Amino acid sequence: MCTCLLTTAIVIQQILKTVNLKKDVKHCWPAAVAWEPGKPLVIEQVEVAPPQAMEVRLKILFTSLCHTDVYFWEAKGQTPLFPRIFGHEAGGIVESVGEGVTDLKPGDHVLPVFTGECKECRHCKSEESNMCDLLRINTDRGVMLNDGKSRFSIKGQPIYHFVGTSTFSEYTVVHVGCVAKINPAASLDKVCVLSCGISTGLGATLNVAKPKKGSTVAIFGLGAVGLAAAEGARIAGASRIIGVDLNPKRFDEAKKFGVTEFVNPKDYDKPVQEVIAEMTDGGVDRSVECTGNINAMISAFECVHDGWGVAVLVGVPNKDDAFKTHPMNLLNERTLKGTFFGNYKPRSDLPSVVEKYMNKELEVEKFITHEVPFSEINKAFEYMLQGDGLRCVIRMDA
Amino acid sequence: MCTCLLTTAIVIQQILKTVNLKKDVKHCWPAAVAWEPGKPLVIEQVEVAPPQAMEVRLKILFTSLCHTDVYFWEAKGQTPLFPRIFGHEAGGIVESVGEGVTDLKPGDHVLPVFTGECKECRHCKSEESNMCDLLRINTDRGVMLNDGKSRFSIKGQPIYHFVGTSTFSEYTVVHVGCVAKINPAASLDKVCVLSCGISTGLGATLNVAKPKKGSTVAIFGLGAVGLAAAEGARIAGASRIIGVDLNPKRFDEAKKFGVTEFVNPKDYDKPVQEVIAEMTDGGVDRSVECTGNINAMISAFECVHDGWGVAVLVGVPNKDDAFKTHPMNLLNERTLKGTFFGNYKPRSDLPSVVEKYMNKELEVEKFITHEVPFSEINKAFEYMLQGDGLRCVIRMDA
Repeated sequence: MCTCLLTTAIVIQQILKTVNLKKDVKHCWPAAVAWEPGKPLVIEQVEVAPPQAMEVRLKILFTSLCHTDVYFWEAKGQTPLFPRIFGHEAGGIVESVGEGVTDLKPGDHVLPVFTGECKECRHCKSEESNMCDLLRINTDRGVMLNDGKSRFSIKGQPIYHFVGTSTFSEYTVVHVGCVAKINPAASLDKVCVLSCGISTGLGATLNVAKPKKGSTVAIFGLGAVGLAAAEGARIAGASRIIGVDLNPKRFDEAKKFGVTEFVNPKDYDKPVQEVIAEMTDGGVDRSVECTGNINAMISAFECVHDGWGVAVLVGVPNKDDAFKTHPMNLLNERTLKGTFFGNYKPRSDLPSVVEKYMNKELEVEKFITHEVPFSEINKAFEYMLQGDGLRCVIRMDA
Repeated sequence: MCTCLLTTAIVIQQILKTVNLKKDVKHCWPAAVAWEPGKPLVIEQVEVAPPQAMEVRLKILFTSLCHTDVYFWEAKGQTPLFPRIFGHEAGGIVESVGEGVTDLKPGDHVLPVFTGECKECRHCKSEESNMCDLLRINTDRGVMLNDGKSRFSIKGQPIYHFVGTSTFSEYTVVHVGCVAKINPAASLDKVCVLSCGISTGLGATLNVAKPKKGSTVAIFGLGAVGLAAAEGARIAGASRIIGVDLNPKRFDEAKKFGVTEFVNPKDYDKPVQEVIAEMTDGGVDRSVECTGNINAMISAFECVHDGWGVAVLVGVPNKDDAFKTHPMNLLNERTLKGTFFGNYKPRSDLPSVVEKYMNKELEVEKFITHEVPFSEINKAFEYMLQGDGLRCVIRMDA
């Protein structure tokens, strides 16, 4: 038994001891509370109420920081909702389950997910969609669906949830539809990063762009999501993976993810789509846009080959952006698609992404560039704000 | 043997008699020549040179008029190329073949096509594309590829070809890559209309939008192409086919093609995409845009359901148009595609469209609303300019 599994086994034993805690007893655990926009998080003892119907309480073992946490923590341009517990990329273990929960039991290894799968709505019943009507991401809601209230409080003051996960807390309460049960043999300190960005990029390529073996793929934006998209192209057997980024420092790291060529739009006097078309005899077979910049989106579409090219948009744009292109670019048999969470259905599909890691197809370790103890969670924010590294894993037990 | 097949057999005998005509003898046949933009065609005796390498000479038996003929005949906004022989929807029989032609022989029943399939280029070798590098539609070229010259002349004056077909002529010369060999049992006076518009609309739905049985489909524009797209939706088993057109007179005819509901954007104060979303609990599963109007294109895209909706653009836009939408419409898992000739590869796939007619899946007769003898070809132009009917078949032997 490896160290990690041993640790996990001990943790499970500890958790199972707590399962029978009386429901009328209040339990407080450490959580990193964001009291104000942009201010360092403060670790507080937070009361975490028991799970209600269709909810589960999780013990978070590892969580990682994603741009989306930082974006809503900075609260520039959105309605701020504070105090709040951020965090949505994580791995943990089910501590207790609420009424009606039959799919999960205490001790199950899980990834909480910022979007859900109720398995009942039109989207969940469609093979094509993962945009569940009931549990689709909602960044404005800071409470649980069941009673419109928070499960977090400090001396009676409610603390808001974030995208239904709030994983910067030793314990959190999540709707059962937002919890993927995974292989307990998977190291949670690694697969915790599969809850959001990495799966988003990977799925954009594997599930939506679907490059064939030997094809050419352009990736716009070489952050964690873009590199995961490149990793998808590498797994699919692309012969050329062209990375596009304004920061030339990213190329060396990108090579580890299969990127074979690098284009910096700043180095050319013409649009990057023309540069790529010249490099590839008319355009790439597939492109994946992971920046959210509207001009990059247009370039990503216009750089695919006519006749068969498919461009996939992943990055989230500004609310006033307009995607604009000449319709002949479409009529010449190009396809433009967007994706949300890489088209993975959280409960149905995420376990298979974990399996890709287990069978060594997907190299998750490459994405983890930093690790900090929970007590130093603000360092993870600093790394991200400095553009330093890809993913910082936060160990909750340290 | 039905009358049609008997007629065909007699014609073939007549043609075969001419096959051994000496190549140094000049042969003149009637053709409808457009001497000037917008002026009635004049039936002239035109010399039709023998086919050169990789060319075939066809005897056209039936041809029909398509908007594209009228558009280039009117020559508004393009460089005019006159005198010219228009016509590109037709059925005929191979009269003689040039050097290197092995796929066709005199007597074969064929549909000439305005775009080709060389079977050698990247597009032809791709399963996804039909946009042949060598023989892709070229409306500016009025000559044959082999020697850059026309095969048509009157007393030595060259008459230009049109999109490589020029079927308003009793005999025409076409590149072998632009000729689909079809089932000789198919009535050429019916399947002649499958050379262009009908296959374009049908293929847009069946090959590109691919609605599942029971799905909802919106069709923008209820001309011949749009009705063929509706016919495709009917064949695919769509449960609701919503026709969108500014002309309410078109609904009665559209019902024959499976259209179940009609929306006239003029009847509403809000964008038609909102009207359709309300009618369909969030949007249709598929839409097909057959007008070429940029606003209709945007509406056709924005009226498909998030999560799984696919919009297919067919209509050809103006050269200064810009397709514009908020990128979130894409990120919410909508797909936008364009198609050219319904994604059919002319030689490989068109025979199967004829088979759909033969096995009564596809009801071609509904599209043929008029018939005129060749001597009255200008009437076909009048019908189209008046918006009267769908397809007018021109009988070359009459």
